[in-house]
Parts: sequence; structure tokens; C-alpha cells
Amino acid sequence: MIGYRTLAVPGPTNMPFAIRQAMDVALEDHRAPDFPEFVKPLLSDLKAVFRMTSGRVFMFPGSGTAGWEAAIGNCLSPRDMVLTSSFGQFSGLWVEMCRRFNLDVKNFDMDWGEGVPLDLYRRRLEADKHHRIKAVLACHNETATGVTSDIAGIRQILDDLDHPALLFVDGVSSIGAIDFRMDEWGVDVAVSGSQKGFMLPTGLCIMGVSDKAMEACARSDHPSCYLDFTDMATANDQGYFPYTPAATLMRGLRASVDMLMEEGLDNVFARHARLADGVRAAVGAWGLRNCARRPELHSDTVTAVVVDPGTNANDIIGAAYNHYGVSLGGGLGKVAGKVFRIGHLGWLNEAMVIQALGGAELALRHCGVNFEAGSGVGAAIERFTEARLDLPLAAE
Amino acid sequence: MIGYRTLAVPGPTNMPFAIRQAMDVALEDHRAPDFPEFVKPLLSDLKAVFRMTSGRVFMFPGSGTAGWEAAIGNCLSPRDMVLTSSFGQFSGLWVEMCRRFNLDVKNFDMDWGEGVPLDLYRRRLEADKHHRIKAVLACHNETATGVTSDIAGIRQILDDLDHPALLFVDGVSSIGAIDFRMDEWGVDVAVSGSQKGFMLPTGLCIMGVSDKAMEACARSDHPSCYLDFTDMATANDQGYFPYTPAATLMRGLRASVDMLMEEGLDNVFARHARLADGVRAAVGAWGLRNCARRPELHSDTVTAVVVDPGTNANDIIGAAYNHYGVSLGGGLGKVAGKVFRIGHLGWLNEAMVIQALGGAELALRHCGVNFEAGSGVGAAIERFTEARLDLPLAAE
Amino acid sequence: MIGYRTLAVPGPTNMPFAIRQAMDVALEDHRAPDFPEFVKPLLSDLKAVFRMTSGRVFMFPGSGTAGWEAAIGNCLSPRDMVLTSSFGQFSGLWVEMCRRFNLDVKNFDMDWGEGVPLDLYRRRLEADKHHRIKAVLACHNETATGVTSDIAGIRQILDDLDHPALLFVDGVSSIGAIDFRMDEWGVDVAVSGSQKGFMLPTGLCIMGVSDKAMEACARSDHPSCYLDFTDMATANDQGYFPYTPAATLMRGLRASVDMLMEEGLDNVFARHARLADGVRAAVGAWGLRNCARRPELHSDTVTAVVVDPGTNANDIIGAAYNHYGVSLGGGLGKVAGKVFRIGHLGWLNEAMVIQALGGAELALRHCGVNFEAGSGVGAAIERFTEARLDLPLAAE
Amino acid sequence: MIGYRTLAVPGPTNMPFAIRQAMDVALEDHRAPDFPEFVKPLLSDLKAVFRMTSGRVFMFPGSGTAGWEAAIGNCLSPRDMVLTSSFGQFSGLWVEMCRRFNLDVKNFDMDWGEGVPLDLYRRRLEADKHHRIKAVLACHNETATGVTSDIAGIRQILDDLDHPALLFVDGVSSIGAIDFRMDEWGVDVAVSGSQKGFMLPTGLCIMGVSDKAMEACARSDHPSCYLDFTDMATANDQGYFPYTPAATLMRGLRASVDMLMEEGLDNVFARHARLADGVRAAVGAWGLRNCARRPELHSDTVTAVVVDPGTNANDIIGAAYNHYGVSLGGGLGKVAGKVFRIGHLGWLNEAMVIQALGGAELALRHCGVNFEAGSGVGAAIERFTEARLDLPLAAE
Repeated sequence: MIGYRTLAVPGPTNMPFAIRQAMDVALEDHRAPDFPEFVKPLLSDLKAVFRMTSGRVFMFPGSGTAGWEAAIGNCLSPRDMVLTSSFGQFSGLWVEMCRRFNLDVKNFDMDWGEGVPLDLYRRRLEADKHHRIKAVLACHNETATGVTSDIAGIRQILDDLDHPALLFVDGVSSIGAIDFRMDEWGVDVAVSGSQKGFMLPTGLCIMGVSDKAMEACARSDHPSCYLDFTDMATANDQGYFPYTPAATLMRGLRASVDMLMEEGLDNVFARHARLADGVRAAVGAWGLRNCARRPELHSDTVTAVVVDPGTNANDIIGAAYNHYGVSLGGGLGKVAGKVFRIGHLGWLNEAMVIQALGGAELALRHCGVNFEAGSGVGAAIERFTEARLDLPLAAE
Repeated sequence: MIGYRTLAVPGPTNMPFAIRQAMDVALEDHRAPDFPEFVKPLLSDLKAVFRMTSGRVFMFPGSGTAGWEAAIGNCLSPRDMVLTSSFGQFSGLWVEMCRRFNLDVKNFDMDWGEGVPLDLYRRRLEADKHHRIKAVLACHNETATGVTSDIAGIRQILDDLDHPALLFVDGVSSIGAIDFRMDEWGVDVAVSGSQKGFMLPTGLCIMGVSDKAMEACARSDHPSCYLDFTDMATANDQGYFPYTPAATLMRGLRASVDMLMEEGLDNVFARHARLADGVRAAVGAWGLRNCARRPELHSDTVTAVVVDPGTNANDIIGAAYNHYGVSLGGGLGKVAGKVFRIGHLGWLNEAMVIQALGGAELALRHCGVNFEAGSGVGAAIERFTEARLDLPLAAE
Repeated sequence: MIGYRTLAVPGPTNMPFAIRQAMDVALEDHRAPDFPEFVKPLLSDLKAVFRMTSGRVFMFPGSGTAGWEAAIGNCLSPRDMVLTSSFGQFSGLWVEMCRRFNLDVKNFDMDWGEGVPLDLYRRRLEADKHHRIKAVLACHNETATGVTSDIAGIRQILDDLDHPALLFVDGVSSIGAIDFRMDEWGVDVAVSGSQKGFMLPTGLCIMGVSDKAMEACARSDHPSCYLDFTDMATANDQGYFPYTPAATLMRGLRASVDMLMEEGLDNVFARHARLADGVRAAVGAWGLRNCARRPELHSDTVTAVVVDPGTNANDIIGAAYNHYGVSLGGGLGKVAGKVFRIGHLGWLNEAMVIQALGGAELALRHCGVNFEAGSGVGAAIERFTEARLDLPLAAE
Repeated sequence: MIGYRTLAVPGPTNMPFAIRQAMDVALEDHRAPDFPEFVKPLLSDLKAVFRMTSGRVFMFPGSGTAGWEAAIGNCLSPRDMVLTSSFGQFSGLWVEMCRRFNLDVKNFDMDWGEGVPLDLYRRRLEADKHHRIKAVLACHNETATGVTSDIAGIRQILDDLDHPALLFVDGVSSIGAIDFRMDEWGVDVAVSGSQKGFMLPTGLCIMGVSDKAMEACARSDHPSCYLDFTDMATANDQGYFPYTPAATLMRGLRASVDMLMEEGLDNVFARHARLADGVRAAVGAWGLRNCARRPELHSDTVTAVVVDPGTNANDIIGAAYNHYGVSLGGGLGKVAGKVFRIGHLGWLNEAMVIQALGGAELALRHCGVNFEAGSGVGAAIERFTEARLDLPLAAE
């Protein structure tokens, strides 16, 4: 491969220099006397990213899957009832995990392209007079279909019904990139990973846990050790960890949090919205369809593009990857071969998105898809420049 | 801190350039079509490091603790009987974990400085006529006390008695640095981590699992997902992973395995033995005592040095760390303040060991310990040059 | 600046990972006994890049300017007559330097956008019956205007006339990127730099010097030391340098030469031609003009785009740089404000060129230039995909 | 080579992480509109390192040799008389260069191990009633013999005699590491390089030039271009350079200057003195001799160790390099085979010096030199700990 292969998958993302450098250091002793001086402010600042003031943030070597397991393993016990919905690869896998952990799963199996069914959730929770439902699960941003669900709406339902269920949210591909509010939305456990909005390499699970969820840990009779919140909390209070932490990734996370804070979370979200808008304009110009069913479900971090029935989306992905230096995301599970995904999250600017869209156009043409070359990029360029009319001609 | 702070803790270690560089790359799509071309040979070559031909190697974001949990969570069920021994921080924590997972733990609680009690193990296994003991646990190299135990001896006992128990070994600070033989010793689950013999950053758990252990998974009724061997095996067979892998660390692991193979495992072990011998000579010259009780227990990857009762070992560690640029290991648990530890594993040569010993001497003098300056370093230099008489005067 | 700022200037270029890593190493002793084992093959392989078998390649800390000075300082003496032509910033500066060094300069001052005037050169050389012209200078690729001149044609003239003048060529922005043939074209001194076709950081001057030019050194009475070819040759023969070399850059150069060799020089040139063709198609689609006057002068490494009189090209460059993450080249000297330059050399692929073109379109629109958004990118995409019809659908 | 090879040569040095990282960035456009915002403060802060308030600092791709040539090429004309002294490889080469440039050289050829002969300089300058001597040259720190000369003393002589000669100083291995005062000592041109006190890779020449020297440029009739101070000054005033600068090295230089400023120049000098004292104690303990003749000549950045006549110093260097991971400096010119050099400058602490001394001891023993192993290291440790009695037991 000549030239950079740009990452247009929905995580991992294009790593900023500052983060790469923060991790490109000698290894360090995680039991050193001054290690807590690094750990404690990091944990504290992470809470700002989750927009939480109470509760705790945990981080440990892991993936989003580890985070899902930590949520249900720490706070629930076998046979506890959970309310769930599946409408894509990742929302679905979490539900499967609940079943494997012998939870009593009440699931709504939705079409892919839909999001969390608020009406159905409301009705089921209303019916749950005895509060047998211990936790409500929601995938904030389904990475497989590019669908963002309304977490504030779920909180509203729980509040309306005065239902005490815990609210568990998969925020792997949302936190740090699109609006997420732990406290305001009353989220009890939020799962995130290093390789999405945090712009880091894979390998670190980052979780927000409310005080209410911490209290629930005491009632769980599921044995846990590696993922145990209580062990983590005890060690974190001293600035250490119950076992060897992924210190190098944590050095990168420090840089990541600094960058998010410097740009300002609201600016980060606005930038993602602006760039996503250009991507959607491009998809429209190509005459293709967004997998997300309705505009209010459109994700600002990933767009799943549905190709025409005569085309194999994997050919497009293969051509982009092998011939044109762009790594697009494949369709997963049910939509394999039917969609390709454009990730647009992390350390991105307009020109980088155009590179991804241009790579997609090259691949579409390579595969014989009929559209006007440049039309998608042109549509995005129009959106991008319209959105930046506020900027001076050429000032710093 | 002016100048490099050298790591003389028993992991993480001084990372080789080649490994640092292998990880200092753009992030990549772990679902890319050519990712299996990277994964499959790596898994295969790792088996050579474990010295196993059958069975499997797994790797996932985690620490040694995750590996311990994976061993007992995958292969055992609550109330299964396990034979264990504790004689240091890490051997002890694994036993505690067994208890938390509701295993029926038969533990020998040994003095710190001792190793796995082979005679006691033999007697207990002999008494276990009905083979209620499902697994025997052993810490190959107790990092807290610098004690290496005789795993081949345990296998001999099991074979002598024709006992079918699984053999689980904590090889976190041994594998890749001192002699370890998965197949020959009949180890069923071996736990290792990225930050010791593999010379990588922390964050990756690497495990060897025998076919016998894989079969045991089917009989376990402990629910698991993140650490599930069967899920891993299914995905690994395709060259992928059941969830987002720590791809960057795996790129480093590729470099690590290449380096171990290029030097040759036997040469790696011989080098560790040679360097450890110099460290022990230095400790003797200082008039201090090795925490490991007997020469046959001396670890070639870490030496725990017992200080005189009037000295606080943490002062020595603090002086070395804060004033002289050397990071020594502290005493853990029972021996806190009583020992300091010199790690001597990984990408090390004679001059690097001398730096660590020199740093220890500076710190010892700084703290008023009475000994002849240079005596420890001198003793090591004598050993080191005697050991290299075979080398030509100055040839490449 | 959020996101990568892509370099679309005609050098420095987008540095490949392999080169960055090759230089991201500990410093080394350039007097070490094994240093020649690194130096000698590098010098030898560089000759292949220059396509020379006799003569020598030199490298030293410097810029192209140092190379120009080395050419005239080593091989000529004050008052020697030289035949030159100026048609851009860089060709012009070299002529100025000749004057400062008290050479007897016969210069043709051409319009910017033209190249070396072969007819005029022929006539002047024909008139030089007494061979008073000691050297003919030519700028192979004028970086300021994107003009490539015909060096083979100059050699033809010299051969036709049996004229013994030395042929000095500025190949700073051509060598390693577009066709250059030291031996076949009878070039006596060729000047190159690290930051163009060699894809390295700035700071290293790389020169090809023919045996005939080496002989000319003996006749020069210009004192020299830092740039002295004879001193360099003597030290290089031992694998060392007459003074401290830029060893880190040379480590990068090793990686660069390896990459050029692996891709194959002819493939490198073909790729540059293919990408340049797309850029020129985009310029046409925008309705703008190439600064190079005729197609045969079009450079495959840089395109200078002439903007309409009502537009300040620096506004476009400023908008691209400040708002859209793309670094375009500015107009130099006479064409300042009238052109912007798109560099398309080095470690580039189609998607990277599209990013640069997209950045230019964003900036053009931002500055109110009237054109159809996406038209330039689309034109390039059409050329790029047509040029790759030979590629399989998606194979590696 | 297993393990790090530590650099104990007198430049290049052990590069700090912060500097390595500052240079491990994407390439940048040195004509970018915001480049002057980086350049101007750097030039200004460099003046603080040279301890000058008037005059200028220049930097360009080059070595110390380029700096020597720039000094005499810019400020002098052929046949100008210069007063010089040679007492080692580098002082000698500068004198040779003066001869090659047709200067009228009045040189004192001293024994190696001596420094600038102040008495002889005084007598010669006193005799120069007509001020025919245009410049006095002095090598501040002769890297080949480890001799530091008294520059303040030369200034005193010039002032006493009211002699208008320019004072040119080779500060390559002194500036940034041992006391140097451009203004106070009335130095007119000071030559430094990136790879010594500035702790950078090789390849950048850094010069301090007084206003008096800048004025002298106008009177020189030596043609120059690449090394022309006037061209540099004109471009620098705009924040740019007359030709492509070594931008990557300059990014590193920014980090270097920041580090020197943060530690404080006086602390930097004191640290070098402290570490050098330990090295000299070690040499004494080995029973070997310092090449520098008298204590007041002892360099704090490099010690040349004279071996016994029966020993070939190159064997010691070879053994240290090939077998024990330590790169010692060789004897140059007249003292080849008779001395080995220990560099002790740059980003160094006590433990790093001990590593170098330990490496030397390993090599000495390997070569059969008779001394007590550990004696040198022990002597250094005693000095080092005595010098740090002020430090608290273990505070940060």
C-alpha cells in the first residue's frame, strides 16, 4: 500500500499526534509513589467528559464487551429481569450476553435501522407494577446501522413512572463524540471504549457508574474479580488499581481528555454534527440510502450506506481498501454485503471527510456503480462551506 | 527528573526500540480483510514461545488477574475443589480469587520466601483417591519474593499418581524469560502478560490453554463472555476476535515474538540466568539477604533484597526513584518496607543491570546503609566478565 | 487545528511511517566501528536512484542551495563562463548565486511558465567555438511554476556539438519522483534534497557527481571545506564522513531508498504521472489555468494553478490552511498572489490527492470563486478509476 | 545487540524523550503563514542559551565544520591574519581550514592535553601593534582530549591591549553544557552544533554572532551563499530562512531550549560538573590518567582516559561496544589507540554515568587490564552521594 490508508471505519479512528506521542514513552512503574498524582486527576477529569459529578469513572484493559459484562455482572444477579431492545449487531450482542448470564430478558427485537423503541419501553415499564425489571438497557449509538437513540427519552419514561430500574447505556461509539449526559439523563452505567470518541488505540474500557449502581453492587451475588467495581473503587481511592493497569493507554487518555476539554465538548459535538451532515448530503447525491430509518435516528459518528441490491457492498469496501487507501466499515451480521459504513468520528476535519468520501466514490466507480463522479464530494463541500461562513477569509 | 529513569522493577520492563516502533503506527481496522494474515501466524508463533504444539494461545485486553479468572472461570464450576499454595502477594491473590468464585480451596499457606510445597502437594493428591481435586494451581515465579517453583515436579507428581487434575500455572513473570514448557510439563492453563518477558506495555493477557482444558470448558457452568475461551477459539479460527482486540499491542507482540525467536529462547533464558547471577553476587557483596530461602528457589527475573531491620526499604526505593533515576520495586503486602526488589528481566544487558545496581548503591548510601561503595557492582562485573570469556576481544 | 493538516506543498511531503520510524531511534556514534556497514551500501544504492553506475553520490547536512553551491564551488573557478536560464524562483536563484560567485554568467531570462530554452542553448553553445562555457546549468523541475524541462535534450545538444561543458542539473523536486537518468543523460552534477522525492524531513542535501565532475574539482581554485567533494570522497571511501553527518536523516534515507526500490522507480514515476493527470483534470474542471505554458512542460510533482485576476491566491491558501486542514503552496516571487501550488509528490495515493483537491475546492468556495463544487474532484476521480481498470475488483 | 546501547561518546548524546517526540511529527511547510510564530521566539530564546542580548543567533543544516567555515568565510577575507592554536583534533582542523581559505595563520602548535596558550596569545597580540591580526580563534572545549580553555582570559588579554581583533570560539562541545558567556566574554562568533549540549540529532549548526561580527561581513570579499550571515539575517527578520531550513530539527531545538531553561543554565552546568567529578574519580581509582594535563583544563563534558602503553584503547572501546552495550569514544588522530573517551554531557543523571563507567570496567576487565572491579564505580558513587547530601531522604 503506497500512501496512508485513512481510517473511515467507526472506530478505531485517526489518532491525533498528541495522543500517539503521549503513549510513545518508556514504560513506567504503576506502583511508583507518584503514580496517584497522574491517576486521580485523570479519573476526575473523565467525569467531566461523561458529564457526571457524582458516581465514578472506571478504566481497565478491556473492550466494550468487557464493559457490558461489568455492568450486568456487578449490578445484577442471575434471574434478575432486564428490559432490552435489539436493532443491530451491538445492541443484539448485549442482549445475548444477558441471556448467557441467566438474566430474565424482556427484549424487543426491532428492524435494523430502528432505534430503542420508546413507546414499547414505556408500555412494558408501565405494566411492571412490582418493579421486577431491575435494569433497562439501551444502545445509545448502534455502530452497525448508524442509529442514535434517545436516552433522555428513556429517563423521562422512568421518571414519569417513578420506576427504580437501573439505566445501562452502551455509549461506546457516542461518548466523547456526540451529546451524552450521565447525570442529566440519570444513566447508571455507561460503557465506553478507548478507540472511538477518545481517539485512542483499542484496549481500554472506560465506564461511568452512578452512586446508585455502586450501591447495587453490594446486592449482586454474581462472583466477579477482574471486572469488580468495588475492588476498583477501593484501589482507585488511593490512586492505584487492583491489578496492572494499561498505563500506556492511560497516558494517551490523559492527552485525549485534554484535547476534548481544550476544544470544548459542545464544540466537539457540533463538529461531529457538521461533518456528519456533509456525509449524509454525499450519500443523497450518490442516490443511495441511509440505513437509519428516519432523520432523528441519524448518527453523527457513523453512516451506514445501503447499496443497491445488484451490488455487493463488500466489493466496494475491498476496492477502497486494496486500491485506493481508504478503510471503510463493512456490514455486520444481517446487513453484511448490503451496507458499507463511513465512520466520521474522532480527530476529523472537513478535508479528512472528503478523503473518505472521495475514497468511497473511487470504489463505487471501480465497482461499476452508476453516479456522477464528484457529486457526493461536491454536496459535502457545499454543506461544509455554508457551515463555515462565519469564519474570516484567512485568519489564524 | 533529568535523564532516563531506568526501570528495575519486575515488569513492566525496558521496552526495546523495535517493539516501541511496532506499536507507534496508525490505528487499523481489526475487521479488515487482511487482518487474519496478521493474526494467524502470531497465534501460531506464540505457541512456540509457550513451547506447546497442541492446544491454543489466547490474547485479549487484560492483566494477569484476568488470566487467573479466565483459567478458573472457563474450566471450573462453583464448588469444584482446587489445590493451591500461597507464599507471596501474587500466589496469595489467586487463592483469594478461587475463594471468591466459590471454589472448594485446599490451600497451603507457606512462609514468604518459600515456593510451591511439592511434598505437601504430593501428600494431598495421594489422599485424593476420588479425584475430587479438579485443578492444581501453581505460581511459577512469585514476583513479590523472587521465588521460582518447580512446575516439572508437580507434573511428575500428577503423573506418578495418575491424577487427572488440571494444572494451572501463573507464568506472568516467567514465560519468555525463564524456562517454561507447556507441553513437556503438561500445563493445562498458563497465564502470562504483555509487560514481563514479552517486553511490551501493560494491557494484554496472553494465555496458553491445552486441549484438555478446552474440553473442560464445556463442563463448566460458570457463565462467561468477555473471558470465554470457546468464543475466542471460534473467532480466532477465522483470524478475528469475538470483540475489539488490542491491535496495537498485538503489533508490538509480533515484534516481541520475532525478537525472542531471533535470540533463541534458550539464549534468552541463559542471558537471564547470567544477569541474575550478577545481581545475586551484588546482593551478597552488600551483605544483604535474598528473600528466596534457598538457591534452588532463586528467580532469574527478580530478586527481592531483604534490608536490615533498622532500615525502611521504602526509603531506599524512594531515594533511587526521586534522586538517582532508578525505579526499584517495592515490598508488597507482608514484606512492605522490608524488601526492595530488583527486576532483571526483558531486554537487558550487563551495562543496564549495572545501572540498576549502581542506582541501588547510590540509594543505599543515601539512606546511610553501611557497605563498601562499588562492592556490589564490582562483584557483578566479575561474574559478568567471567561468563563472557568465550567472547573474542572485540569482534562484532 | 483539529485533524491532520495534510501537506499539499511541493515538498516537504507526507512522510511514510516507515521513514518516520527509521529516524525515531536513539542517537548513534557516527565513528562506531560498524558505521561503514551502514554507509557504504546506502551510498551504493543511492546511485541506483540517480540511475548512475560510475561517479559518486554525496550527502551532507544541507539544502538544495548548498547543493547548488557545491556544484559551482567544487567544479568551477571565478570568472569561468556558465550558460544558464531562469524561468522561476529556483532557476533564478541559482543564476544569482553564479553571479555572486563571480562566474561569467550567460543567462536566458525566460517568462515564468517556460522551461529551459533548448533552441537558445543550442545556438549559444554552437557559437562557443572555443569552449569557453565550462558548465551548462538547468533546472529540471522548476518548483515555483510546475515546469519540467528536457534534460535529455540538452545532452543531445552537447553531444551534437561535441561540447565538453559540464552539465549541472537541479533535480531537487524531480529525482526520486519523475524520470531522471544521470548516466544516460550525461549529467555531471545533480542536486537533490531529502524533502521531495525522498520523502524525508528537510535537512539533507543529496548529490550525484560524475567522474568528469570529480576531475574538474582538481582544477578549481575556489577554496572550499564544508562542501568539498574531494574531502567527502576520501572519507566516504572508508565509510565515514569528513565531519559529523546527519546520521538520523541517513537512517531515514535508508528506509526511503528501500521503499523506492521496492515499488520500483518506473512504478514510482508512473504513479506520479497518474496522480498528476488527475490534478490537471481538476484544474481544468475548475476553469483555471496551469502556470506551465504547454502540456510537455507540465510537471508531475507540482502544479501551479493561476487564479483569476480578481482573486488573491494567498486568500485561498490561507483559507485552506487555517480552516480546512490543507497546506497548499504559495506563489513565489513574480507570481506571488497569482498562483497557488498543489504539490503531488512523494508517498501519495489517489485518496490523498483527492483530499488535497477537496481542500482546494473548500478554500476556493470559501473565497467566493465561482465553480461547481465537486467538479474538480470528480474529474480526478474519473481519471483515477479509468487508469486503474486493470486492477481486479477487490483483490489485495 | 540485546538491550540499549548507551551513548557515552562526547556527542551525539542520549536524546531526551521530549526532544525525540518534538521531532516525531508530520512534516510542515516552512513557508506557512504561521511559521514565523515558531521561528522568532526560538531565535530569541537561543540567545539566552548563548548568554547574549545583542547580536544574532543563526541555525542552518550543517555541522561544526560548517560553523567554522561560516565564521571565517563571512567575516574575513583571503590573506587576513588570524591567531590560532592547535592542541587536539578539532582545534587543529579549524587551523587547517584557515590555511585552506588562504588566511595568514599564526598558529601555536601545542602538545595534546594542553589548551589555548594564554601567555603566548598575549605576547603575540602585544607584538601586533598595527592590528594586522583580524581574528583570534579558540577552541573552548577540545573534544578529542577533554580540555577546556579559558575564553574569559582571552577576552581579558584583548581588552588589556585594546586589540580590535574578532574573537571566534568553537563551542561545539561546551555551549549548553558548561559555562559559556557570549556577551560577557566578548565572543564575536560562537559555533555550536545540535548533537552536544542541545541533546539533538546531528545535522544542525547553531551559531552566535555579535553585532561587531555582522559588521565585519560587509568588509569580507569571500563569496558566500549557503553560509551567508547577511542573507540569513534578512530572512530571519521575517521569521523565515533564505532556503529550506531543517524544520524538524528546529522543532527538537525548541524542546531542547525549553528543557535547558526549565532546569536553569546554572543548574545544567552544576550537574555536568558534579557528574564529571565522579567520572574523574573513577579514572583515578582505576589507576589511569586523564589526557588533560592539569585540573584547571579538565573538561566537564568529556574525559579522555590514557591507557597503559601495553593496552590498545581500541580493544577496550570494541569490547564495550560489541559485548557490553556501551559506546565509548575513540582516540582521534595523534592519540588513536592511546585513549578512550567517556562523554558525560547532555541529558544525564548519576545512574546513567554509572552505566557508562560500569561498561568501561567490563571492557577493561575483558581486555585484561588489572584493576579492582567496582573501584571506579565505587569512587563515583561516593562523590555522587556526597554531592547530594542536601537532598531529603526520599521526597519528590
